[in-house]
Amino acid sequence: MGNSALIFELLHKDARTKARRGRITTPHGVIETPVFMPVGTQATVKAMKPEDVKNTGAQIILGNTYHLYLRPGSDIIREAGGLHKFMNWDKPILTDSGGFQVFSLGHMRKITEEGVKFQSYIDGSRHMLTPEKSIEIQTDLGSDIMMAFDECAPPDADYNYIERSQAMTTRWLERCIKAQKDTDKQALFGIMQGGFFRDLREKSAEAIVSFDLPGYAIGGISVGETKEEYIGVLEYAPDLLPENKPRYVMGIGTPDYIFEAVEHGVDMFDCVEPTRIARHGMAMTSHGRLSIKNARFARDFTPLDPECDCYTCRNYSRAYLRHLFRENEALSHMLLSEHNLRFLSHMCENIRTAIEEDRFKEYKKEFYSKYYNEEA
Amino acid sequence: MGNSALIFELLHKDARTKARRGRITTPHGVIETPVFMPVGTQATVKAMKPEDVKNTGAQIILGNTYHLYLRPGSDIIREAGGLHKFMNWDKPILTDSGGFQVFSLGHMRKITEEGVKFQSYIDGSRHMLTPEKSIEIQTDLGSDIMMAFDECAPPDADYNYIERSQAMTTRWLERCIKAQKDTDKQALFGIMQGGFFRDLREKSAEAIVSFDLPGYAIGGISVGETKEEYIGVLEYAPDLLPENKPRYVMGIGTPDYIFEAVEHGVDMFDCVEPTRIARHGMAMTSHGRLSIKNARFARDFTPLDPECDCYTCRNYSRAYLRHLFRENEALSHMLLSEHNLRFLSHMCENIRTAIEEDRFKEYKKEFYSKYYNEEA
Repeated sequence: MGNSALIFELLHKDARTKARRGRITTPHGVIETPVFMPVGTQATVKAMKPEDVKNTGAQIILGNTYHLYLRPGSDIIREAGGLHKFMNWDKPILTDSGGFQVFSLGHMRKITEEGVKFQSYIDGSRHMLTPEKSIEIQTDLGSDIMMAFDECAPPDADYNYIERSQAMTTRWLERCIKAQKDTDKQALFGIMQGGFFRDLREKSAEAIVSFDLPGYAIGGISVGETKEEYIGVLEYAPDLLPENKPRYVMGIGTPDYIFEAVEHGVDMFDCVEPTRIARHGMAMTSHGRLSIKNARFARDFTPLDPECDCYTCRNYSRAYLRHLFRENEALSHMLLSEHNLRFLSHMCENIRTAIEEDRFKEYKKEFYSKYYNEEA
Repeated sequence: MGNSALIFELLHKDARTKARRGRITTPHGVIETPVFMPVGTQATVKAMKPEDVKNTGAQIILGNTYHLYLRPGSDIIREAGGLHKFMNWDKPILTDSGGFQVFSLGHMRKITEEGVKFQSYIDGSRHMLTPEKSIEIQTDLGSDIMMAFDECAPPDADYNYIERSQAMTTRWLERCIKAQKDTDKQALFGIMQGGFFRDLREKSAEAIVSFDLPGYAIGGISVGETKEEYIGVLEYAPDLLPENKPRYVMGIGTPDYIFEAVEHGVDMFDCVEPTRIARHGMAMTSHGRLSIKNARFARDFTPLDPECDCYTCRNYSRAYLRHLFRENEALSHMLLSEHNLRFLSHMCENIRTAIEEDRFKEYKKEFYSKYYNEEA
């Protein structure tokens, strides 16, 4: 396996934790890690122009294969010249495999060795996603990083189920690798599974690492588990992956989950959280989350977060944002989304500097004391 | 009456029509006329950042007194430092009197010489809007141009009703003028009424012109009348107003209504039309309106309007816009709104140049042949 589409440099390791400062180079540019990746499910980060996403400091965004395959169709995006051009985003893009959505959104799904049959959540039409099909779609999309098609087993599945599922995920990975035609343009990441069973995680890691892929994700730990179970896996799973490859935990977007992942040596994460809560009137601020609906903001002419340098905080007051939200104005979603993305991006900037200066623990403590009003 | 808050210069008169090229100077900047004014009903031009509104070429926007009085409350906007600061818009703002919305949105309204009692469309609360109250609210909002509180009579009202209404509107204007405390900061425009009865229009004009106000609107001609009735009034009404003051027709936003108004000597107009139809997937283009929902755009990778220089047309395809609209993505409203505002702004730029060059008629003909595919 070549990995010429992606170069990872490990720049520095924090002196007292496993936190890593790295750099990923892709065909569409450089990504400084640890990095939070905003999600643009349907070829748009909801309620934001690409320029506004960039202005938050975003270095890479995520596109969802399942959604784009169903609508508008990956053939249309291919004809448009790929996802970058279609959506006017010239920085790196990572696409998921579609697997997670098939399991969470698909109706009447049926899993076999061949792949997963499912019905569209839109019109009930029947489809089949296989490792080969997922790679074909992701090739049409032209992402910089594509993800292997895996089975994301339910968090309450038993040992026997997870063992079989993990083994099939490995066979599927091999098929993904074979299906990939051009490794110079797109990097393929493998996904470690194995649930909350350490020996299965080890088995999975050993198998996927043998393919010498350009990067690896730790799957199945952000799917409804407790925070203790999540940290439990983080305590050993990243160490099962090669040090010289980027590590990715999918679907995490709250500060505490991100800090825990970074502390245990994870480099990449994504989540709809910051933009989704924005559309519900929730803002992440230096002093914790706040709901802009709250009546106490009616006459509050200060910024959402006085410590924030984003467009929203530089130009608008809480009173204005509350007014917009109550009136269901699109601008409230636009402004809160931009702020929340900037918040996480800024947090990651601080995390990167803290790692470089060997004070990740101190920064985590400082952040928690303000954001959660508690010890780290 | 002083009019120091507003200066109008008549720069040029078209050689063959009544079309005028003018310039209005306000405390927040200069407006070249004829001008289309986007509407920002609830302290936001829907689905657009102020910078994006500016980038369309917008020179002035309109705020709605009725909505802002009910929510968030004009006291809050006053405390914020006025509407400009509250919504982050540093160019001129015109506010209506609230009258039109009281008549079109208010429940259980009751009109007396004193003013209009009505119930809020939001929560049924009881309010009374009077000439004095309207000026008080508009003073709180701090608009550059405020409108006199008038009765906007129903288009099917009979002669006797319109005669009484027009006379009351004149008495209300006198009360508005008395209620205005500082004529240096905000200019007050009077509104001509009189329905479709020429002698009542003349009576109304004579009365309001006697107050020597900084500008005048022609009311009650964009409220459901036929196009013939509309043009019928335009043929004589603008001439009843002084040449050295700006003339404003409220609530028009389709190209034909704008061209007719300009041709008869009107300088200003506003409408929610371009942004409202954008949210329904309709775009104004050089070759007429198009519905982006149309299946024929699924694989159309050309811009919405190849002749347009707006952000949307420079960066996105019809296929992408169709996809966004079908997925109900906020970005489709954002991009179509920006395009439609640019379209009307660009049309007005062309109108201004055409007037300067004494070829308004030719430009109108050229525009109609492409947009309506018909003779002007």
